[in-house]
Amino acid sequence: MQTASNSHTMTKKLCRLEFEPIGRRGEADPDQTLLDSAHQLGVDIASICGGSGTCGRCKVQILSGRVSEVTKSEEKFAVGKNKIPPFRLACQAYPADDLKIHVPAESLTSKQRTLVEGLAVAFKPVPPVTTHTVRLDQADAGEINGDADHLLELLAGKFGLKAPTIDLKILSVLSPRLMARECSFEVAVRSNEVIALGPWPRHRLGLAVDLGTTKIAVYLVDLDSGETLVSRGCMNPQISMGEDVISRLTRAARSEKEAIRLQQLALGEINRVAHELCADLDLSPENILEAVIAGNTVMHHLLLNIPVERLGLAPYSPAIKQAVDIKARDLGLKTATGAYVHFLPNIAGFVGGDHVAMLLATGIHRPAGLILALDIGTNTEICLADGEKKTSVSCASGPAFEGAHIKFGMRAGEGAIEHLRLVGDEIEFQTVGGVPPIGLCGSGILDAMAQLYLGGVLDAGGKMGDHSRVRLNDDGMSEFELIDAAGRNGQPALTVTQKDIRELQLAKGAIRSGINLLLDHTGHASEEIDKIIIAGAFGSYIDVKSAVIVGMLPALPLDRFHQVGNAAGMGARLVLASQYHRKESQALAREINYFELAAAPQFAQVFSQSMYLGHEQ
Amino acid sequence: MQTASNSHTMTKKLCRLEFEPIGRRGEADPDQTLLDSAHQLGVDIASICGGSGTCGRCKVQILSGRVSEVTKSEEKFAVGKNKIPPFRLACQAYPADDLKIHVPAESLTSKQRTLVEGLAVAFKPVPPVTTHTVRLDQADAGEINGDADHLLELLAGKFGLKAPTIDLKILSVLSPRLMARECSFEVAVRSNEVIALGPWPRHRLGLAVDLGTTKIAVYLVDLDSGETLVSRGCMNPQISMGEDVISRLTRAARSEKEAIRLQQLALGEINRVAHELCADLDLSPENILEAVIAGNTVMHHLLLNIPVERLGLAPYSPAIKQAVDIKARDLGLKTATGAYVHFLPNIAGFVGGDHVAMLLATGIHRPAGLILALDIGTNTEICLADGEKKTSVSCASGPAFEGAHIKFGMRAGEGAIEHLRLVGDEIEFQTVGGVPPIGLCGSGILDAMAQLYLGGVLDAGGKMGDHSRVRLNDDGMSEFELIDAAGRNGQPALTVTQKDIRELQLAKGAIRSGINLLLDHTGHASEEIDKIIIAGAFGSYIDVKSAVIVGMLPALPLDRFHQVGNAAGMGARLVLASQYHRKESQALAREINYFELAAAPQFAQVFSQSMYLGHEQ
Repeated sequence: MQTASNSHTMTKKLCRLEFEPIGRRGEADPDQTLLDSAHQLGVDIASICGGSGTCGRCKVQILSGRVSEVTKSEEKFAVGKNKIPPFRLACQAYPADDLKIHVPAESLTSKQRTLVEGLAVAFKPVPPVTTHTVRLDQADAGEINGDADHLLELLAGKFGLKAPTIDLKILSVLSPRLMARECSFEVAVRSNEVIALGPWPRHRLGLAVDLGTTKIAVYLVDLDSGETLVSRGCMNPQISMGEDVISRLTRAARSEKEAIRLQQLALGEINRVAHELCADLDLSPENILEAVIAGNTVMHHLLLNIPVERLGLAPYSPAIKQAVDIKARDLGLKTATGAYVHFLPNIAGFVGGDHVAMLLATGIHRPAGLILALDIGTNTEICLADGEKKTSVSCASGPAFEGAHIKFGMRAGEGAIEHLRLVGDEIEFQTVGGVPPIGLCGSGILDAMAQLYLGGVLDAGGKMGDHSRVRLNDDGMSEFELIDAAGRNGQPALTVTQKDIRELQLAKGAIRSGINLLLDHTGHASEEIDKIIIAGAFGSYIDVKSAVIVGMLPALPLDRFHQVGNAAGMGARLVLASQYHRKESQALAREINYFELAAAPQFAQVFSQSMYLGHEQ
Repeated sequence: MQTASNSHTMTKKLCRLEFEPIGRRGEADPDQTLLDSAHQLGVDIASICGGSGTCGRCKVQILSGRVSEVTKSEEKFAVGKNKIPPFRLACQAYPADDLKIHVPAESLTSKQRTLVEGLAVAFKPVPPVTTHTVRLDQADAGEINGDADHLLELLAGKFGLKAPTIDLKILSVLSPRLMARECSFEVAVRSNEVIALGPWPRHRLGLAVDLGTTKIAVYLVDLDSGETLVSRGCMNPQISMGEDVISRLTRAARSEKEAIRLQQLALGEINRVAHELCADLDLSPENILEAVIAGNTVMHHLLLNIPVERLGLAPYSPAIKQAVDIKARDLGLKTATGAYVHFLPNIAGFVGGDHVAMLLATGIHRPAGLILALDIGTNTEICLADGEKKTSVSCASGPAFEGAHIKFGMRAGEGAIEHLRLVGDEIEFQTVGGVPPIGLCGSGILDAMAQLYLGGVLDAGGKMGDHSRVRLNDDGMSEFELIDAAGRNGQPALTVTQKDIRELQLAKGAIRSGINLLLDHTGHASEEIDKIIIAGAFGSYIDVKSAVIVGMLPALPLDRFHQVGNAAGMGARLVLASQYHRKESQALAREINYFELAAAPQFAQVFSQSMYLGHEQ
């Protein structure tokens, strides 16, 4: 037996698996499900039901190679039957060959998803900063005949620059080099201005920032290849001065000192993270030759320290809409000496450059049916594109889906329940990192609401009824016990309260009323929508079914939904490294019509109706 | 007799006199010389001989009306026989009619001369900053539909501005005004950028600064009319860190801290004087919409805090030559929020934008014979224009003619001897303000050297010989007593020492050797020069005869000399208020050839020879 077993092991052909876009490879036993092999190889494919084929979380696509036949369990989850290649459940499929497997972001646990989240758009880099190698002549006396003007003449003569100028601060670098008789220079030029002197070891860097109300995403891009080299997310420390845009507006309007404090908080964090990312590449921020920042209008105004008063009052007018280019050093952003930072154009109200960036990255500006694009965050922007015509709105969805104001709410860190199911009276759940649960992150909160509604614990109005797990807490409020104290090592039970549900109703109601008012305003019905693009970190983690069940999103066939992750960040990178896309973003911003929801006469009615649960709204 | 006399007085026809360019008018007795009448009318025409027709200081030109015949005394001073109208001595001429009289700057005492000094050039203002009145629409809701973009669209649509932008700091002014429902704005635009919002009561101001090593001249100009409204001179406080450009260069090169201190000293003084001048007009510096600064290369580099190291070492290369435009606030210059400051282009070595400004104002760049133009100061720049070809040099003449290193040297303030004559053993002199003498200013020092040489007190080598007024001082050094202690109320006697003479020889030698080397380099002899233009404060006060006697200037007919006062200041004002002249200044700077005196093989020989006194050099 021992021998036979050995011989069996030795003769059994192992299959080579390659998981994309993570890039993890390894060998797998053909007698093991793809889910088990993936876990062994360190690919954290999500699973709530533990491999029984009932939760449908472990969807993957087989890009090449043969696998076992589709099982009955899988047929229930034929959500992607129109997908090519079709979805399979990793817990039901066995390899019959070497495979190349695509793992969609939503099938990964949050922890690993951060590695790949976000839309990737291929583009040809046409950076706004060009670099040239210039050789200065030796004059007769053996001295280098080279002041700044000589350099500029060469740039004009040899590289065809028109009336080139030089950032005066560059002279402090140029002069000592000329004195040291250096005569060959790499220069970085932007709009005919010399903004930096090289060398730039390995990379000429660009910095892209998606400046959100709650989160900041920072990317370092190779300006020549367009490749994103490193990226990192962090919290926006302005949160300490207010959770949403309105409260920060109020602080900034109160005093110049608070406005500056808000500016410095965000700026300091961007500088800190950019510095860390540069250090990861063994480079300094001096290598950053261009920066791009995309944010909503409030983030934009606060960072530039321009007046916000009018943003807070009807007709909610930004102080400036057009794209802004300023010297990074004038802002206090750490980059190469003379580098610029570009702010994408604003639209109106709170709809700013991040929305433009998202639309740019998702390609919604190119006519292709009726498309609804949402960037769900503390502030949610929604655009309805009807061919050439695009209309955008902004909804104050608040930070509930980011865990704020929810009793056991937390960000998607280790121990956060990211998905759950109510099976009879039992709860099945999955946590970030697979560790014991300590709270609920956005997608878990959304699942909880959907499951409680499906299970009859919540009525359509959101009122919590009777259930074996429902109890009254010390304040006399109903709460649903997800994990009892026994399952938490004596810690208090993990619950969802009636108040939590009310917060979530406000958040989802804000989003749904935005969608409905927008459809109404443009004369469309939700059934006509060909494609719903869901952008933003929260949006890419959620179970779309849950969102439909609670009525946050319209009830459409699930294959019309596309979760694209941080598209604003991708848009910022496009604008960073491509002058073509930069121009396009400006044209796009001009094309978008802004619709002020608060000005709609039926706003109050639609909003209160949108707070109901269920998909018939 | 009494009656007759009375009747004589009553019937005697009084003449109306009008003095230009001072603009003083009044009636004069035809029995009184023009000099006496001028003094009665408050026109301070200079006179050393007290009206005896022997000093020739009181030259005037009769622009209209009849005067008495030319006297024998006047024939001796027929320096202006080629002048049209010819010069007359005011002490010899009597009015026979109503007269219009031109009083050249050099015939005025220093005190009054400051009123008119400086070249006046008529020009058509084409300011770089234009202003527009923009009216924003009221939107339907009665709200003003007016963010910055709306303003910019109007500027593009109505005034044809191309892709206009707005200085972000302007938003802090614009926003509150929009909130207050103001809908009509005056905006100042420069190169398609909105740099300020009005209103500008009475004047849109421009600031022109002639930034000299020793003196700073500050002018406020009405940008629309081109008129100089107010002006003021002050000392350059950088003097506390070194009297000449080399010593300041050395300080700045020593440490960043000292470089910044030098920058801040000059900047602080310019801001202070500009603020005073604005206050004189009952306006604030916020009304300054454009500034222009002209200075030599060292003043230029120190004010911009750009590296000076290379300026101090052969080949004495400025860090940048081309004209520089930066935001005034980035420099720390107090102006309207978004205003720019323009620095005229540099040439080479120490020859900078003030030289360009001087040449521009004197029109030397337009071909008109062989012209030598000098701007005499602590650093003296000289240009020889031979039709289209122009060559400039810089001489380290030092501050002796500004009173430094001279025992009784002082600036041209009250009590300074500005002119003197040695008549036998007696000294005749004239002081600024006509008060008792306390020292000698530049022109007085030059006269003293010339008179002592003419009187045989100094030999050609500058050695002081025997004379009743020569004595040995406590240090065993010869000195010439101008005013004895008795004539000074017990104060020590006012003297010119052997050491003073040596200092002056170095200064005049530097200037003369510059002229000679420049002539030699371009293949010309001094006799060929058609016109010598003497610019600068000192140059406009000096007695050209004295300058020729000591050999500072070539011995040419006196009517070839033209003392034009502060031409650099005029040039800066031309560049400030006329885009045409600004362009011209840049073309001019490119045309000028720079000749480095220190690199000339015969430099040492010519310099030592130039220190000899006498006009044969």
